[in-house]
Amino acid sequence: MMATVNENYLKLQAGYLFPEIGKRRRAFQQSHPEAKIISMGIGDVTQPLAPAVIEAMHLAVDEMGKAETFRGYDDGGIGYEFLREAIAANDFRPRGVATDIDEIFISDGAKSDTANSQELFGLDNIIAVTDPVYPVYIDSNVMAGRTGPIAGQGMYQKIVYMPATVENNFVPEPLKGKADLIYLCFPNNPTGAVATRGQLESWVKYARQNGSVILFDAAYEAYISDPAIPHSIYEIPGAKEVAIEFRSFSKTAGFTGVRCAYAVVPKELRARSESGQRVAVNPLWSRRLCTKFNGVSYITQAGAAATYTVEGQKQIRGMIELYMNNAKVIRETLAALGYETYGGVNAPYIWLKTPNGLGSWEFFDLLLTQAHIITTPGVGFGPSGEGYVRLTAFGQPANVKEALDRISQLS
Amino acid sequence: MMATVNENYLKLQAGYLFPEIGKRRRAFQQSHPEAKIISMGIGDVTQPLAPAVIEAMHLAVDEMGKAETFRGYDDGGIGYEFLREAIAANDFRPRGVATDIDEIFISDGAKSDTANSQELFGLDNIIAVTDPVYPVYIDSNVMAGRTGPIAGQGMYQKIVYMPATVENNFVPEPLKGKADLIYLCFPNNPTGAVATRGQLESWVKYARQNGSVILFDAAYEAYISDPAIPHSIYEIPGAKEVAIEFRSFSKTAGFTGVRCAYAVVPKELRARSESGQRVAVNPLWSRRLCTKFNGVSYITQAGAAATYTVEGQKQIRGMIELYMNNAKVIRETLAALGYETYGGVNAPYIWLKTPNGLGSWEFFDLLLTQAHIITTPGVGFGPSGEGYVRLTAFGQPANVKEALDRISQLS
Repeated sequence: MMATVNENYLKLQAGYLFPEIGKRRRAFQQSHPEAKIISMGIGDVTQPLAPAVIEAMHLAVDEMGKAETFRGYDDGGIGYEFLREAIAANDFRPRGVATDIDEIFISDGAKSDTANSQELFGLDNIIAVTDPVYPVYIDSNVMAGRTGPIAGQGMYQKIVYMPATVENNFVPEPLKGKADLIYLCFPNNPTGAVATRGQLESWVKYARQNGSVILFDAAYEAYISDPAIPHSIYEIPGAKEVAIEFRSFSKTAGFTGVRCAYAVVPKELRARSESGQRVAVNPLWSRRLCTKFNGVSYITQAGAAATYTVEGQKQIRGMIELYMNNAKVIRETLAALGYETYGGVNAPYIWLKTPNGLGSWEFFDLLLTQAHIITTPGVGFGPSGEGYVRLTAFGQPANVKEALDRISQLS
Repeated sequence: MMATVNENYLKLQAGYLFPEIGKRRRAFQQSHPEAKIISMGIGDVTQPLAPAVIEAMHLAVDEMGKAETFRGYDDGGIGYEFLREAIAANDFRPRGVATDIDEIFISDGAKSDTANSQELFGLDNIIAVTDPVYPVYIDSNVMAGRTGPIAGQGMYQKIVYMPATVENNFVPEPLKGKADLIYLCFPNNPTGAVATRGQLESWVKYARQNGSVILFDAAYEAYISDPAIPHSIYEIPGAKEVAIEFRSFSKTAGFTGVRCAYAVVPKELRARSESGQRVAVNPLWSRRLCTKFNGVSYITQAGAAATYTVEGQKQIRGMIELYMNNAKVIRETLAALGYETYGGVNAPYIWLKTPNGLGSWEFFDLLLTQAHIITTPGVGFGPSGEGYVRLTAFGQPANVKEALDRISQLS
């Protein structure tokens, strides 16, 4: 008898969203080699790294070339103190959140962290996700065996899907029933919605009452412009006892090709063992990292730390403003054309209702073939995304303008 | 009721080996602040990066600072083609191994790859490890739930431990019984042993007869000096149908602080599903990466590719020769002092028998307190490691000499 595969992998739907988009794009480009395709689809940044980051990385490369300053393993694999201290001092302290550096774990990406975090918890936990949702939260739980097979409308059995719709302004209220691990992402990918302080308070209250853990993805917090919107779930009193937070330099500082992120796992956070004991989650995360990970490149961490310098902050704010100006142009132009759009104010994503009741993939194909524009079909993020496409604000302003001109000509 | 933790994590032994060593080191240093401690323990490199790597990384940093050459996500997260092509052309083709670049997956470390690979397989598989062993193979399977609790002598139930002893020259023969996933590491960490072609052939034959998968860790292959010793398990005919191979730039090119490695997952490799179908493993690995990982820094990959240039090859060979000269000095000095040593010829590790029947930790403490030298207790790698310590050849030659002088004065 042969070794067996992880049977849960066989439950996964064949096409992860972005490979399918890539396939359709390549097929169209092959049959229309002259078409200049503009991507408003995948959420990848386009602006070069900030000069302060570049300078810091050059210095770090030079350090690695000299015996006196060479660095090998990052001890423990959880990140250099200089970076974890800069994070605590800049991302949390000014917002009134006290964070110990032993609660901050540097990683290679929020995708890795959001995918790996489920591993610290039992397979018997019920997970809840908003719908539409970043597919990684679901797929990592499918792979672990925390779900049944896929059922109707592309939904997996045993997962609680919470519809995010125009009726609830794309922010679901806490469940009536019970879920143990709740994935929340605000500013939201893909809808661009943000949660108010009151909405986050309701969720923290729910988690405290039900013994749930909130897995809070704040990868897009730097795009919040409204001062009333919390950037961190820890701005809500009591959240440190019930929530893990994920942050990333990918969208904040254009690090998609450099790879740096972090997770905050508060010392107060507890889950329970089979025997009913309360177990601290922070040491489990630490144990996972020191067993399965060996840290992030020193050069990368030096670059990430440079985003917190005065110059670095100014430069990355400039990048974010450029993208958010794209978002504004997209929103306003599409509105003037009579399209219905959401998001794009405190988030780099615009959630566009397809016209004339078209399905997400139908509208995707229409924009690809008629305007040579790539979008992301909303239904790829879950059944409640049907009838929407996601546009991203990550692009060169000239390309954004041309894309909008082409859409105008369609109408 | 609260969310539950992954109960398997609670089976893990409290102290991962290296944190415990660090604790004892700090305690001694605090009580003896004047002591100049020399580490021959943790397997971390000390030589700076090769000039060719430094130059390539500077160029890559500059590319990331310009809009025209900026790179975001590495599409698919499996590594740039330029690096995968260099690997196929340099690490495999000259040894007669044909490898498609779709079989090569770039990652942030062999620790990550060896820890994550078990996830592709069912929880019902029986795993086998050599003893002593790199703890990651075991701990990652404990975390997944593929073992029982820890039992006598620090061994987990349901794992097959294959003793590597002086009697079998530290290379266990294939099992009489059955195991599904077999971890082999040659050149070996911690014993420094290498497997001959004939021994690898026996293992490949065993795996083919039993439907097993060999997880072959070749992280130290660059240290092989004997031309008769295979560098890759794929030099054995038929191995591509039964083996995954792990490689790393950490020890080959001093990348412990830069983080780059790769796994080879042949297209021929199959495992079976519950329904008895043969399932290709290569697409499962790919699916795992695109769901849970977003690739390695472009700057890192550019640096790794530079190790394959003519200059890069010359420079990294120079580093390896320096370390292997350390190994020679360690072996010869200790032998002249009457110590029994193994390894250190085709591997950067020397496996030292403790004198006078001392336990591993006893001899560790003796060397720490009497000679201010850090070693790695062999028993930390498994029960068959009791009575040994591991010395590494990674160090400045002057430090190695001083450490040996101190040991001479002990005798």
